[in-house]
Amino acid sequence: MQAYLNNQFVNSEDAVLQVKDLSIQRGYAVFDFFRTVNGVPLFIDEHLDRFYASAAAMHLKLNKSREEIKTIAQELIKEAALPEAGIRLMLTGGYSVDGYQLAEPNLIITCNAAKTTTPADFEKGFAVITKEHQRELPHIKSINYLMAVWLQPLLKEKQADDVLYYTKESVSEFPRCNVFIVTHNNKLVTPVRNMLFGITRKNVLALAGPMMPVIERDIPLEELLTAKEIFLTATTKKIIPIVKLNGKQVGDGKPGVYTRKIYQQFLELENFLATGKKL
Amino acid sequence: MQAYLNNQFVNSEDAVLQVKDLSIQRGYAVFDFFRTVNGVPLFIDEHLDRFYASAAAMHLKLNKSREEIKTIAQELIKEAALPEAGIRLMLTGGYSVDGYQLAEPNLIITCNAAKTTTPADFEKGFAVITKEHQRELPHIKSINYLMAVWLQPLLKEKQADDVLYYTKESVSEFPRCNVFIVTHNNKLVTPVRNMLFGITRKNVLALAGPMMPVIERDIPLEELLTAKEIFLTATTKKIIPIVKLNGKQVGDGKPGVYTRKIYQQFLELENFLATGKKL
Repeated sequence: MQAYLNNQFVNSEDAVLQVKDLSIQRGYAVFDFFRTVNGVPLFIDEHLDRFYASAAAMHLKLNKSREEIKTIAQELIKEAALPEAGIRLMLTGGYSVDGYQLAEPNLIITCNAAKTTTPADFEKGFAVITKEHQRELPHIKSINYLMAVWLQPLLKEKQADDVLYYTKESVSEFPRCNVFIVTHNNKLVTPVRNMLFGITRKNVLALAGPMMPVIERDIPLEELLTAKEIFLTATTKKIIPIVKLNGKQVGDGKPGVYTRKIYQQFLELENFLATGKKL
Repeated sequence: MQAYLNNQFVNSEDAVLQVKDLSIQRGYAVFDFFRTVNGVPLFIDEHLDRFYASAAAMHLKLNKSREEIKTIAQELIKEAALPEAGIRLMLTGGYSVDGYQLAEPNLIITCNAAKTTTPADFEKGFAVITKEHQRELPHIKSINYLMAVWLQPLLKEKQADDVLYYTKESVSEFPRCNVFIVTHNNKLVTPVRNMLFGITRKNVLALAGPMMPVIERDIPLEELLTAKEIFLTATTKKIIPIVKLNGKQVGDGKPGVYTRKIYQQFLELENFLATGKKL
Protein backbone atom coordinates (compact mmCIF):
# COMPACT_ATOMS: atom_id res chain seq x y z
CA MET A 1 0.00 0.00 0.00
CA GLN A 2 1.20 3.44 -0.84
CA ALA A 3 0.80 6.93 0.51
CA TYR A 4 1.93 10.39 -0.52
CA LEU A 5 4.03 12.61 1.74
CA ASN A 6 4.79 16.19 0.66
CA ASN A 7 6.32 15.63 -2.75
CA GLN A 8 6.63 11.89 -3.14
CA PHE A 9 4.89 8.55 -3.06
CA VAL A 10 6.04 6.40 -0.13
CA ASN A 11 5.12 3.05 1.36
CA SER A 12 2.41 3.33 4.01
CA GLU A 13 4.82 2.53 6.83
CA ASP A 14 7.11 5.31 5.60
CA ALA A 15 4.30 7.87 5.84
CA VAL A 16 5.77 9.26 9.05
CA LEU A 17 6.10 12.64 10.70
CA GLN A 18 8.79 13.78 13.10
CA VAL A 19 7.34 14.34 16.55
CA LYS A 20 8.09 18.06 16.24
CA ASP A 21 5.19 18.33 13.78
CA LEU A 22 2.43 20.56 15.17
CA SER A 23 -0.13 17.78 14.76
CA ILE A 24 1.76 15.73 17.37
CA GLN A 25 2.87 18.70 19.48
CA ARG A 26 -0.39 20.66 19.49
CA GLY A 27 -3.08 18.65 17.69
CA TYR A 28 -2.95 21.21 14.90
CA ALA A 29 -3.93 19.86 11.46
CA VAL A 30 -6.85 19.64 9.07
CA PHE A 31 -8.04 16.76 6.94
CA ASP A 32 -10.76 15.58 4.64
CA PHE A 33 -11.92 12.16 3.59
CA PHE A 34 -13.75 10.84 0.56
CA ARG A 35 -14.34 7.38 -0.75
CA THR A 36 -14.37 5.54 -4.05
CA VAL A 37 -16.71 2.97 -5.54
CA ASN A 38 -15.26 0.96 -8.43
CA GLY A 39 -12.32 3.34 -8.43
CA VAL A 40 -14.58 6.38 -8.87
CA PRO A 41 -14.07 9.06 -6.19
CA LEU A 42 -17.43 10.27 -4.86
CA PHE A 43 -18.10 13.98 -4.41
CA ILE A 44 -14.38 14.71 -4.74
CA ASP A 45 -14.95 18.36 -5.70
CA GLU A 46 -17.06 19.03 -2.62
CA HIS A 47 -14.43 17.38 -0.40
CA LEU A 48 -11.64 19.38 -2.04
CA ASP A 49 -13.64 22.59 -1.59
CA ARG A 50 -13.91 21.84 2.12
CA PHE A 51 -10.26 20.75 2.46
CA TYR A 52 -9.02 24.03 0.96
CA ALA A 53 -11.48 25.98 3.11
CA SER A 54 -10.33 24.18 6.29
CA ALA A 55 -6.67 24.80 5.44
CA ALA A 56 -7.28 28.50 4.80
CA ALA A 57 -9.32 28.88 8.00
CA MET A 58 -6.46 27.32 9.96
CA HIS A 59 -3.83 29.59 8.36
CA LEU A 60 -2.24 26.59 6.61
CA LYS A 61 -0.95 27.11 3.09
CA LEU A 62 -1.61 24.25 0.68
CA ASN A 63 0.96 24.43 -2.11
CA LYS A 64 -0.80 22.04 -4.46
CA SER A 65 -3.54 22.76 -6.96
CA ARG A 66 -6.82 20.85 -7.00
CA GLU A 67 -5.70 19.13 -10.19
CA GLU A 68 -2.41 18.05 -8.61
CA ILE A 69 -4.24 16.59 -5.60
CA LYS A 70 -6.73 14.82 -7.85
CA THR A 71 -3.89 13.31 -9.90
CA ILE A 72 -2.10 12.07 -6.75
CA ALA A 73 -5.34 10.61 -5.38
CA GLN A 74 -6.10 8.86 -8.67
CA GLU A 75 -2.60 7.37 -8.66
CA LEU A 76 -3.12 6.01 -5.12
CA ILE A 77 -6.59 4.70 -6.00
CA LYS A 78 -5.25 2.93 -9.09
CA GLU A 79 -2.32 1.42 -7.20
CA ALA A 80 -4.55 0.20 -4.33
CA ALA A 81 -7.10 -1.34 -6.74
CA LEU A 82 -9.72 -1.71 -3.98
CA PRO A 83 -13.45 -2.15 -4.62
CA GLU A 84 -14.11 0.56 -2.02
CA ALA A 85 -11.31 2.86 -0.86
CA GLY A 86 -11.10 5.84 1.48
CA ILE A 87 -8.78 8.70 0.58
CA ARG A 88 -7.61 10.82 3.47
CA LEU A 89 -6.06 14.22 2.79
CA MET A 90 -4.11 15.71 5.70
CA LEU A 91 -2.37 19.04 6.13
CA THR A 92 -0.51 19.65 9.40
CA GLY A 93 0.98 22.69 11.13
CA GLY A 94 4.45 21.48 10.11
CA TYR A 95 7.84 21.17 11.81
CA SER A 96 7.65 24.00 14.29
CA VAL A 97 10.88 25.55 15.57
CA ASP A 98 9.49 25.85 19.09
CA GLY A 99 6.61 23.36 19.09
CA TYR A 100 4.09 26.19 18.92
CA GLN A 101 4.65 28.55 16.00
CA LEU A 102 3.19 27.54 12.64
CA ALA A 103 5.67 26.20 10.10
CA GLU A 104 5.65 24.90 6.52
CA PRO A 105 2.69 22.48 6.44
CA ASN A 106 3.17 18.77 5.81
CA LEU A 107 0.77 17.23 3.28
CA ILE A 108 -0.11 13.54 3.57
CA ILE A 109 -2.50 11.60 1.36
CA THR A 110 -3.36 8.00 2.20
CA CYS A 111 -5.59 5.41 0.55
CA ASN A 112 -7.04 2.50 2.49
CA ALA A 113 -9.89 0.02 2.23
CA ALA A 114 -13.08 1.78 3.31
CA LYS A 115 -15.60 -0.02 5.47
CA THR A 116 -18.92 1.55 4.59
CA THR A 117 -22.30 0.70 6.06
CA THR A 118 -24.55 -1.85 4.32
CA PRO A 119 -28.34 -2.02 3.87
CA ALA A 120 -28.31 -4.46 6.83
CA ASP A 121 -26.68 -1.73 8.98
CA PHE A 122 -29.42 0.62 7.80
CA GLU A 123 -32.16 -1.80 8.86
CA LYS A 124 -30.58 -2.31 12.27
CA GLY A 125 -30.12 1.40 12.94
CA PHE A 126 -28.03 3.00 15.68
CA ALA A 127 -28.53 3.38 19.41
CA VAL A 128 -27.06 6.73 20.48
CA ILE A 129 -26.60 8.80 23.59
CA THR A 130 -26.40 12.56 24.04
CA LYS A 131 -23.67 14.70 25.58
CA GLU A 132 -23.65 18.44 26.30
CA HIS A 133 -20.63 19.64 24.38
CA GLN A 134 -19.64 22.13 21.72
CA ARG A 135 -16.69 21.36 19.43
CA GLU A 136 -14.06 24.08 19.03
CA LEU A 137 -14.00 25.81 15.61
CA PRO A 138 -16.69 23.36 14.44
CA HIS A 139 -16.86 24.65 10.86
CA ILE A 140 -13.24 23.55 10.29
CA LYS A 141 -12.48 19.86 9.71
CA SER A 142 -9.58 19.82 12.17
CA ILE A 143 -8.14 16.69 13.82
CA ASN A 144 -9.56 17.70 17.20
CA TYR A 145 -11.53 14.61 18.25
CA LEU A 146 -10.37 14.77 21.86
CA MET A 147 -13.87 14.50 23.34
CA ALA A 148 -15.01 11.89 20.82
CA VAL A 149 -12.15 9.47 21.45
CA TRP A 150 -12.29 10.20 25.17
CA LEU A 151 -15.99 9.20 25.27
CA GLN A 152 -15.37 5.78 23.70
CA PRO A 153 -15.36 3.84 26.99
CA LEU A 154 -18.66 5.52 27.94
CA LEU A 155 -20.21 4.49 24.62
CA LYS A 156 -19.10 0.92 25.22
CA GLU A 157 -20.56 0.99 28.71
CA LYS A 158 -23.88 2.39 27.46
CA GLN A 159 -23.84 -0.01 24.46
CA ALA A 160 -24.24 3.03 22.22
CA ASP A 161 -23.08 3.28 18.61
CA ASP A 162 -22.48 7.01 18.70
CA VAL A 163 -22.92 10.20 20.71
CA LEU A 164 -24.87 13.31 19.74
CA TYR A 165 -23.55 16.66 20.99
CA TYR A 166 -25.92 19.37 22.13
CA THR A 167 -25.91 22.77 23.84
CA LYS A 168 -28.66 24.70 25.57
CA GLU A 169 -29.81 26.07 22.20
CA SER A 170 -29.70 23.06 19.91
CA VAL A 171 -28.34 19.66 19.11
CA SER A 172 -25.37 20.13 16.76
CA GLU A 173 -23.82 16.95 15.38
CA PHE A 174 -22.22 13.61 16.13
CA PRO A 175 -18.40 13.67 16.28
CA ARG A 176 -18.24 12.51 12.65
CA CYS A 177 -21.85 12.72 11.39
CA ASN A 178 -24.62 15.26 10.88
CA VAL A 179 -28.07 14.80 12.36
CA PHE A 180 -31.52 15.14 10.77
CA ILE A 181 -35.03 14.78 12.15
CA VAL A 182 -38.40 14.31 10.48
CA THR A 183 -41.06 16.26 12.38
CA HIS A 184 -44.59 15.03 13.04
CA ASN A 185 -45.84 17.20 10.20
CA ASN A 186 -43.30 15.54 7.88
CA LYS A 187 -40.73 18.26 7.54
CA LEU A 188 -37.02 17.46 7.30
CA VAL A 189 -34.99 19.55 9.74
CA THR A 190 -31.24 19.74 10.36
CA PRO A 191 -29.05 22.13 12.39
CA VAL A 192 -27.45 25.02 10.56
CA ARG A 193 -24.73 26.29 12.90
CA ASN A 194 -22.03 25.19 15.33
CA MET A 195 -21.31 22.05 13.33
CA LEU A 196 -19.33 20.80 10.35
CA PHE A 197 -21.13 21.06 7.03
CA GLY A 198 -21.04 17.46 5.84
CA ILE A 199 -20.97 16.50 2.17
CA THR A 200 -23.56 13.74 2.70
CA ARG A 201 -25.67 16.31 4.57
CA LYS A 202 -25.53 18.55 1.50
CA ASN A 203 -26.54 15.69 -0.80
CA VAL A 204 -29.40 14.69 1.51
CA LEU A 205 -30.74 18.24 1.54
CA ALA A 206 -30.69 18.27 -2.27
CA LEU A 207 -32.31 14.83 -2.61
CA ALA A 208 -35.03 15.49 -0.03
CA GLY A 209 -35.99 18.87 -1.50
CA PRO A 210 -38.48 17.56 -4.10
CA MET A 211 -39.86 15.09 -1.52
CA MET A 212 -40.74 17.25 1.50
CA PRO A 213 -40.21 20.65 3.11
CA VAL A 214 -36.56 21.00 4.14
CA ILE A 215 -35.53 23.39 6.91
CA GLU A 216 -32.12 24.28 8.34
CA ARG A 217 -32.48 25.65 11.88
CA ASP A 218 -31.69 24.98 15.56
CA ILE A 219 -33.22 21.80 17.00
CA PRO A 220 -33.59 21.99 20.78
CA LEU A 221 -32.79 18.67 22.44
CA GLU A 222 -36.40 18.39 23.72
CA GLU A 223 -37.68 18.55 20.14
CA LEU A 224 -35.26 15.88 19.01
CA LEU A 225 -36.35 13.59 21.86
CA THR A 226 -39.92 13.50 20.48
CA ALA A 227 -39.14 13.61 16.73
CA LYS A 228 -40.94 11.20 14.40
CA GLU A 229 -37.73 10.04 12.73
CA ILE A 230 -34.04 10.74 13.39
CA PHE A 231 -31.10 9.80 11.22
CA LEU A 232 -27.44 10.62 10.77
CA THR A 233 -25.36 11.17 7.67
CA ALA A 234 -21.64 10.73 7.02
CA THR A 235 -19.27 9.75 4.23
CA THR A 236 -18.62 6.17 5.38
CA LYS A 237 -21.86 5.66 7.32
CA LYS A 238 -23.99 7.09 4.49
CA ILE A 239 -27.43 7.31 6.18
CA ILE A 240 -28.26 5.44 9.38
CA PRO A 241 -31.57 5.68 11.26
CA ILE A 242 -31.42 6.39 14.99
CA VAL A 243 -33.68 3.78 16.55
CA LYS A 244 -32.73 4.30 20.19
CA LEU A 245 -31.88 7.53 21.98
CA ASN A 246 -30.54 7.54 25.56
CA GLY A 247 -31.97 4.02 25.99
CA LYS A 248 -35.45 4.97 24.74
CA GLN A 249 -36.94 3.70 21.48
CA VAL A 250 -37.39 6.25 18.68
CA GLY A 251 -40.79 5.87 16.91
CA ASP A 252 -41.46 2.13 16.47
CA GLY A 253 -37.74 1.36 16.71
CA LYS A 254 -37.44 0.78 12.95
CA PRO A 255 -36.14 2.96 10.11
CA GLY A 256 -38.73 5.64 9.36
CA VAL A 257 -40.60 6.00 6.08
CA TYR A 258 -38.90 9.25 5.05
CA THR A 259 -35.48 8.11 6.23
CA ARG A 260 -35.86 5.06 4.00
CA LYS A 261 -36.96 7.10 0.97
CA ILE A 262 -34.00 9.45 1.35
CA TYR A 263 -31.63 6.51 1.83
CA GLN A 264 -32.86 4.86 -1.36
CA GLN A 265 -32.42 8.10 -3.27
CA PHE A 266 -28.91 8.44 -1.88
CA LEU A 267 -27.97 4.88 -2.93
CA GLU A 268 -29.35 5.67 -6.41
CA LEU A 269 -27.19 8.77 -6.63
CA GLU A 270 -24.09 6.97 -5.42
CA ASN A 271 -24.63 4.11 -7.84
CA PHE A 272 -25.22 6.47 -10.72
CA LEU A 273 -22.00 8.35 -9.98
CA ALA A 274 -20.00 5.12 -9.65
CA THR A 275 -21.38 3.28 -12.67
CA GLY A 276 -23.19 5.82 -14.80
CA LYS A 277 -26.29 3.57 -14.55
CA LYS A 278 -29.56 3.72 -12.65
CA LEU A 279 -30.19 1.03 -10.03
CA MET B 1 20.62 15.24 19.87
CA GLN B 2 18.80 12.18 21.06
CA ALA B 3 15.27 11.18 21.87
CA TYR B 4 13.55 8.10 23.21
CA LEU B 5 10.80 6.30 21.31
CA ASN B 6 8.95 3.42 22.98
CA ASN B 7 11.86 1.17 23.97
CA GLN B 8 14.92 2.75 22.47
CA PHE B 9 17.06 5.84 22.17
CA VAL B 10 16.97 7.32 18.68
CA ASN B 11 18.36 10.38 16.93
CA SER B 12 15.97 13.33 17.11
CA GLU B 13 15.15 13.13 13.39
CA ASP B 14 14.27 9.44 13.84
CA ALA B 15 11.73 10.28 16.55
CA VAL B 16 8.89 9.76 14.10
CA LEU B 17 5.36 8.41 14.21
CA GLN B 18 3.42 6.80 11.40
CA VAL B 19 0.52 8.99 10.32
CA LYS B 20 -1.93 6.35 11.57
CA ASP B 21 -1.03 7.35 15.13
CA LEU B 22 -4.07 8.80 16.93
CA SER B 23 -2.16 12.01 17.71
CA ILE B 24 -2.01 12.74 13.97
CA GLN B 25 -5.39 11.21 13.10
CA ARG B 26 -7.41 12.63 16.00
CA GLY B 27 -5.22 14.95 18.07
CA TYR B 28 -5.31 12.34 20.84
CA ALA B 29 -2.25 12.37 23.13
CA VAL B 30 -1.05 13.67 26.48
CA PHE B 31 2.25 15.20 27.44
CA ASP B 32 4.15 16.91 30.19
CA PHE B 33 7.16 19.15 30.22
CA PHE B 34 9.79 19.95 32.82
CA ARG B 35 13.10 21.68 32.64
CA THR B 36 16.59 21.33 34.03
CA VAL B 37 19.05 23.81 35.47
CA ASN B 38 22.67 22.62 35.56
CA GLY B 39 21.42 19.16 34.63
CA VAL B 40 19.06 19.05 37.61
CA PRO B 41 15.42 18.36 36.65
CA LEU B 42 13.09 20.77 38.46
CA PHE B 43 9.90 19.50 40.13
CA ILE B 44 10.21 16.22 38.24
CA ASP B 45 8.01 14.31 40.70
CA GLU B 46 5.15 16.78 40.35
CA HIS B 47 5.41 16.63 36.56
CA LEU B 48 5.48 12.82 36.62
CA ASP B 49 2.43 12.80 38.92
CA ARG B 50 0.57 14.90 36.42
CA PHE B 51 1.78 12.91 33.40
CA TYR B 52 0.52 9.65 34.91
CA ALA B 53 -2.76 11.34 35.90
CA SER B 54 -3.23 12.76 32.37
CA ALA B 55 -2.52 9.35 30.82
CA ALA B 56 -4.99 7.59 33.14
CA ALA B 57 -7.68 10.21 32.55
CA MET B 58 -7.28 9.73 28.79
CA HIS B 59 -7.49 5.90 29.07
CA LEU B 60 -3.84 5.58 27.93
CA LYS B 61 -1.74 2.90 29.57
CA LEU B 62 1.83 3.92 30.39
CA ASN B 63 3.93 0.76 30.60
CA LYS B 64 6.92 2.37 32.27
CA SER B 65 7.53 3.00 35.95
CA ARG B 66 8.40 6.42 37.31
CA GLU B 67 11.93 5.19 37.94
CA GLU B 68 12.29 3.97 34.36
CA ILE B 69 11.13 7.33 33.01
CA LYS B 70 13.47 9.18 35.34
CA THR B 71 16.39 7.04 34.20
CA ILE B 72 15.60 7.64 30.51
CA ALA B 73 15.24 11.39 31.13
CA GLN B 74 18.54 11.52 33.02
CA GLU B 75 20.26 9.73 30.15
CA LEU B 76 18.90 12.27 27.65
CA ILE B 77 19.85 15.18 29.91
CA LYS B 78 23.38 13.84 30.33
CA GLU B 79 23.80 13.26 26.61
CA ALA B 80 22.46 16.73 25.70
CA ALA B 81 24.73 18.46 28.25
CA LEU B 82 22.78 21.72 28.03
CA PRO B 83 22.84 24.48 30.67
CA GLU B 84 19.05 24.58 30.52
CA ALA B 85 17.07 21.78 28.90
CA GLY B 86 13.39 21.02 28.47
CA ILE B 87 12.23 17.41 28.72
CA ARG B 88 9.00 16.61 26.95
CA LEU B 89 7.18 13.39 27.81
CA MET B 90 4.51 12.36 25.28
CA LEU B 91 2.07 9.47 25.23
CA THR B 92 -0.17 9.12 22.17
CA GLY B 93 -3.30 7.11 21.34
CA GLY B 94 -1.14 4.73 19.28
CA TYR B 95 -1.42 3.08 15.87
CA SER B 96 -5.16 2.74 15.55
CA VAL B 97 -6.58 0.04 13.26
CA ASP B 98 -9.30 2.35 12.01
CA GLY B 99 -7.95 5.81 12.85
CA TYR B 100 -10.39 6.13 15.73
CA GLN B 101 -10.17 3.26 18.24
CA LEU B 102 -7.50 3.52 20.92
CA ALA B 103 -4.44 1.32 20.43
CA GLU B 104 -1.16 0.57 22.21
CA PRO B 105 0.18 4.02 23.18
CA ASN B 106 3.44 5.36 21.77
CA LEU B 107 5.81 6.92 24.30
CA ILE B 108 8.19 9.63 23.17
CA ILE B 109 10.65 11.53 25.34
CA THR B 110 12.65 14.40 23.89
CA CYS B 111 15.25 16.75 25.33
CA ASN B 112 15.92 20.16 23.83
CA ALA B 113 17.44 23.49 24.81
CA ALA B 114 14.90 25.37 26.93
CA LYS B 115 14.38 29.06 26.39
CA THR B 116 13.21 30.38 29.75
CA THR B 117 12.33 33.92 30.65
CA THR B 118 14.95 36.22 32.18
CA PRO B 119 14.72 38.96 34.84
CA ALA B 120 14.64 41.43 31.92
CA ASP B 121 11.51 39.68 30.59
CA PHE B 122 10.04 39.97 34.09
CA GLU B 123 10.69 43.74 34.17
CA LYS B 124 9.16 44.22 30.74
CA GLY B 125 6.04 42.19 31.52
CA PHE B 126 3.42 40.92 29.06
CA ALA B 127 0.65 42.63 27.14
CA VAL B 128 -2.26 40.21 26.87
CA ILE B 129 -5.73 40.06 25.37
CA THR B 130 -8.80 38.10 26.52
CA LYS B 131 -10.93 35.58 24.62
CA GLU B 132 -14.16 33.88 25.68
CA HIS B 133 -13.28 30.20 25.45
CA GLN B 134 -13.25 27.08 27.57
CA ARG B 135 -10.71 24.35 26.84
CA GLU B 136 -12.02 20.79 26.53
CA LEU B 137 -11.10 18.44 29.39
CA PRO B 138 -8.97 21.24 30.87
CA HIS B 139 -7.66 19.21 33.85
CA ILE B 140 -5.86 16.87 31.41
CA LYS B 141 -2.60 18.01 29.80
CA SER B 142 -3.66 16.90 26.32
CA ILE B 143 -2.14 18.15 23.05
CA ASN B 144 -5.33 20.06 22.18
CA TYR B 145 -4.04 23.59 21.50
CA LEU B 146 -6.28 24.11 18.49
CA MET B 147 -7.63 27.46 19.68
CA ALA B 148 -4.26 28.66 20.99
CA VAL B 149 -2.37 28.06 17.74
CA TRP B 150 -5.34 29.30 15.73
CA LEU B 151 -5.29 32.60 17.64
CA GLN B 152 -1.61 33.32 16.85
CA PRO B 153 -2.31 35.69 13.92
CA LEU B 154 -4.75 37.64 16.11
CA LEU B 155 -2.09 37.98 18.83
CA LYS B 156 0.37 39.26 16.28
CA GLU B 157 -2.19 41.76 15.00
CA LYS B 158 -2.98 42.96 18.52
CA GLN B 159 0.74 42.99 19.45
CA ALA B 160 -0.14 40.76 22.41
CA ASP B 161 2.19 38.29 24.10
CA ASP B 162 -0.54 35.91 25.17
CA VAL B 163 -4.30 35.39 25.44
CA LEU B 164 -6.34 34.81 28.60
CA TYR B 165 -9.41 32.57 28.31
CA TYR B 166 -12.58 33.37 30.23
CA THR B 167 -16.18 32.27 30.50
CA LYS B 168 -19.24 34.01 31.94
CA GLU B 169 -18.27 32.76 35.41
CA SER B 170 -14.52 33.33 35.60
CA VAL B 171 -11.25 33.78 33.84
CA SER B 172 -9.57 30.38 33.65
CA GLU B 173 -6.05 30.32 32.24
CA PHE B 174 -3.77 31.19 29.37
CA PRO B 175 -3.24 28.38 26.82
CA ARG B 176 -0.03 27.37 28.59
CA CYS B 177 0.00 29.45 31.81
CA ASN B 178 -2.03 29.95 34.97
CA VAL B 179 -3.26 33.36 36.05
CA PHE B 180 -3.07 35.10 39.44
CA ILE B 181 -4.30 38.46 40.67
CA VAL B 182 -3.45 40.54 43.71
CA THR B 183 -6.60 42.26 45.01
CA HIS B 184 -6.72 45.82 46.35
CA ASN B 185 -6.72 44.42 49.88
CA ASN B 186 -3.55 42.47 49.07
CA LYS B 187 -4.91 38.98 48.73
CA LEU B 188 -3.51 36.55 46.17
CA VAL B 189 -6.30 34.94 44.15
CA THR B 190 -6.18 32.31 41.40
CA PRO B 191 -8.90 30.24 39.66
CA VAL B 192 -9.59 26.77 40.97
CA ARG B 193 -11.59 25.04 38.23
CA ASN B 194 -11.86 24.60 34.46
CA MET B 195 -8.11 24.91 34.03
CA LEU B 196 -4.91 22.88 34.17
CA PHE B 197 -3.28 22.73 37.59
CA GLY B 198 0.19 24.04 36.83
CA ILE B 199 3.28 23.01 38.74
CA THR B 200 4.56 26.60 38.94
CA ARG B 201 1.05 27.58 40.14
CA LYS B 202 1.40 25.03 42.96
CA ASN B 203 4.83 26.37 43.92
CA VAL B 204 3.61 29.95 43.88
CA LEU B 205 0.70 29.08 46.17
CA ALA B 206 3.14 27.47 48.61
CA LEU B 207 5.64 30.35 48.46
CA ALA B 208 3.01 33.08 48.84
CA GLY B 209 1.27 31.39 51.79
CA PRO B 210 3.49 32.91 54.52
CA MET B 211 3.41 36.29 52.73
CA MET B 212 -0.28 37.05 52.24
CA PRO B 213 -3.77 35.51 52.23
CA VAL B 214 -4.05 33.05 49.36
CA ILE B 215 -7.43 32.16 47.88
CA GLU B 216 -8.42 29.74 45.13
CA ARG B 217 -11.78 30.73 43.62
CA ASP B 218 -13.52 31.99 40.49
CA ILE B 219 -12.34 35.40 39.24
CA PRO B 220 -14.99 37.14 37.11
CA LEU B 221 -13.45 38.99 34.16
CA GLU B 222 -14.68 42.34 35.56
CA GLU B 223 -12.72 41.71 38.76
CA LEU B 224 -9.58 40.87 36.83
CA LEU B 225 -9.90 44.06 34.77
CA THR B 226 -9.57 46.18 37.92
CA ALA B 227 -7.09 44.01 39.87
CA LYS B 228 -4.09 45.67 41.56
CA GLU B 229 -1.61 43.20 40.09
CA ILE B 230 -1.90 40.38 37.57
CA PHE B 231 0.70 37.78 36.69
CA LEU B 232 1.02 34.45 34.95
CA THR B 233 2.96 31.34 35.85
CA ALA B 234 4.35 28.53 33.69
CA THR B 235 7.28 26.14 33.56
CA THR B 236 9.31 28.01 30.94
CA LYS B 237 7.89 31.48 31.57
CA LYS B 238 8.29 31.16 35.35
CA ILE B 239 6.46 34.30 36.57
CA ILE B 240 5.61 37.21 34.27
CA PRO B 241 3.66 40.34 35.29
CA ILE B 242 0.75 41.36 33.07
CA VAL B 243 1.29 45.07 32.47
CA LYS B 244 -1.26 45.58 29.72
CA LEU B 245 -4.69 43.98 29.32
CA ASN B 246 -6.76 44.47 26.15
CA GLY B 247 -4.66 47.54 25.38
CA LYS B 248 -5.17 49.11 28.81
CA GLN B 249 -2.38 49.57 31.35
CA VAL B 250 -2.54 47.41 34.50
CA GLY B 251 -1.71 49.40 37.68
CA ASP B 252 1.23 51.69 36.89
CA GLY B 253 2.30 49.43 34.00
CA LYS B 254 5.22 47.99 36.01
CA PRO B 255 5.66 44.68 37.88
CA GLY B 256 3.67 44.87 41.13
CA VAL B 257 5.19 44.74 44.61
CA TYR B 258 3.73 41.35 45.49
CA THR B 259 4.40 39.89 42.06
CA ARG B 260 8.06 40.86 42.51
CA LYS B 261 8.28 39.36 46.00
CA ILE B 262 6.81 36.07 44.81
CA TYR B 263 9.09 36.05 41.77
CA GLN B 264 12.17 36.55 43.96
CA GLN B 265 11.06 33.72 46.22
CA PHE B 266 10.53 31.51 43.18
CA LEU B 267 14.02 32.23 41.83
CA GLU B 268 15.43 31.42 45.29
CA LEU B 269 13.61 28.08 45.30
CA GLU B 270 14.73 27.24 41.79
CA ASN B 271 18.33 28.15 42.53
CA PHE B 272 18.31 26.16 45.73
CA LEU B 273 17.01 23.07 43.95
CA ALA B 274 19.53 23.44 41.11
CA THR B 275 22.63 24.21 43.22
CA GLY B 276 21.79 23.35 46.80
CA LYS B 277 22.73 26.94 47.68
CA LYS B 278 20.85 30.07 48.64
CA LEU B 279 21.03 33.04 46.26
